[in-house]
Amino acid sequence: MIVDIRKRILIVGLGLLGGSYAKVLKRFGFHISAITKEQGSIDYAIKENIIDDGSTELDKELIGNADIVIFALYPHVFVEWIEENQSLLKSGALITDVTGVKGSIVYKIQDMLRPDVEFIAAHPMAGREVSGVENSSDKIFIGANYIVTPTEKNTEEAIETCMELGRLLGFSNVTTLSPKEHDEMIGFLSQLTHCIAITLMTCNDKEDMEKFTGDSFRDLTRIARINDLMWSELFVANKQALLEQMNLFMDKFKELKTMLEEEDIDGMRKMMRHSTERRALFDKK
Amino acid sequence: MIVDIRKRILIVGLGLLGGSYAKVLKRFGFHISAITKEQGSIDYAIKENIIDDGSTELDKELIGNADIVIFALYPHVFVEWIEENQSLLKSGALITDVTGVKGSIVYKIQDMLRPDVEFIAAHPMAGREVSGVENSSDKIFIGANYIVTPTEKNTEEAIETCMELGRLLGFSNVTTLSPKEHDEMIGFLSQLTHCIAITLMTCNDKEDMEKFTGDSFRDLTRIARINDLMWSELFVANKQALLEQMNLFMDKFKELKTMLEEEDIDGMRKMMRHSTERRALFDKK
Repeated sequence: MIVDIRKRILIVGLGLLGGSYAKVLKRFGFHISAITKEQGSIDYAIKENIIDDGSTELDKELIGNADIVIFALYPHVFVEWIEENQSLLKSGALITDVTGVKGSIVYKIQDMLRPDVEFIAAHPMAGREVSGVENSSDKIFIGANYIVTPTEKNTEEAIETCMELGRLLGFSNVTTLSPKEHDEMIGFLSQLTHCIAITLMTCNDKEDMEKFTGDSFRDLTRIARINDLMWSELFVANKQALLEQMNLFMDKFKELKTMLEEEDIDGMRKMMRHSTERRALFDKK
Repeated sequence: MIVDIRKRILIVGLGLLGGSYAKVLKRFGFHISAITKEQGSIDYAIKENIIDDGSTELDKELIGNADIVIFALYPHVFVEWIEENQSLLKSGALITDVTGVKGSIVYKIQDMLRPDVEFIAAHPMAGREVSGVENSSDKIFIGANYIVTPTEKNTEEAIETCMELGRLLGFSNVTTLSPKEHDEMIGFLSQLTHCIAITLMTCNDKEDMEKFTGDSFRDLTRIARINDLMWSELFVANKQALLEQMNLFMDKFKELKTMLEEEDIDGMRKMMRHSTERRALFDKK
């Protein structure tokens, strides 16, 4: 194991993701601490043996002793935390995150960070429609992607450690992408899909539609039940990349609409065959 | 039981839906015949005891003896069949269908039909991503909707018989809508969702995206694997209603895009809360 088991891990933000990280890593034998807002989350996690200790305060000892710090916070809260509290970090500490956007966060953090602390960014592509440490699970990473987004400022060692963390957590696919590639990919695969789902869900308020709903509509709107605080922040934090994807989608949708207006059956069939062929690539392997 | 068990039922078009109808109705004891293109489908269905007899020809006896005829054909094939062969139907026969669009079909058929034969239209909202009588199943109707779309030309008796057929088939929800209401509803819940799925699947051909795909993207594109022949015809057959739904969707999507451009967090959060609230209505009961 690349990551030394004697290393002390601190999780900042003990929600669904932070709690799930803690659950898995504790099982390997790491000493796990947590800092989070609610005393109830700390109490629950200690009782359930998810963490060893924790605090709702900026406990200098907890922070100063941590070799690896995992930030599971909203993007702007993470940035503020580093701005205000980075002096408390241990010299030589490695910090990482779970933030779903990268370009607007990674460089900002790396630019302001003390030179004796390294930030290596990661995006665990896992989540559920519930939140809180009480819903954390050591199973949510199975089958999921874990993407490390290194920059020129990162050391090989930090990249390797961060990737090993992903493997320890149980992710099925651990890879690296540049922050830009990551944001493009996430803009398309995740953010655009959420934009589409909430649009579909709100564009027609006609009553009684639900009585006739089948699986197609349900599938397309499963993610229309959305955490508005988090997603509006993520959208804005990835504004340019997401706008590009929205434009790609809208242009194609207009093409289809024009073909329908002109009853261009051949054109529609061609698009549908393209769709069918391409969808096969995306089947679960 | 409203429908007399001694009535002879003929299914024209023995594919997935036609075969599934046959499977269930045969179990109740009806005499089931079928007319379909492929001899292999007939042979299979007789061997599996799904039908009593069948033909690939316009067998005058089979057609002339049927009290109830169920057409499970593509829309334009159904219209042509009636145009060319309605003289073969028994006087007093009741005919029904499984067509997924109504306005462009129902009046056309009723207007040209002999006065001694009644057409009552129905849309069984069930299907699978596979086709053919070999894939037929007596389970696909459970939990699904069956919509009868009567017009002024229909008798109470025919409407009741058609609804009873839906209940016998095992549909969980048997209702009536006007052809116009049906087409609006289907334009939104089914056709618009397919338009969105195929657009999403074809708007960005960047390589390697599939490596990072999560459940959201997979859910939104499950129906992007699509029968191009059938759906292009269904889209055109419901052109006006579908174009209206596409416009509603596009206008809302543009609103969201503008809010993102202007970083209007409050506006986006409001839309997301609306989405979340409305999605709750569509949960499976």
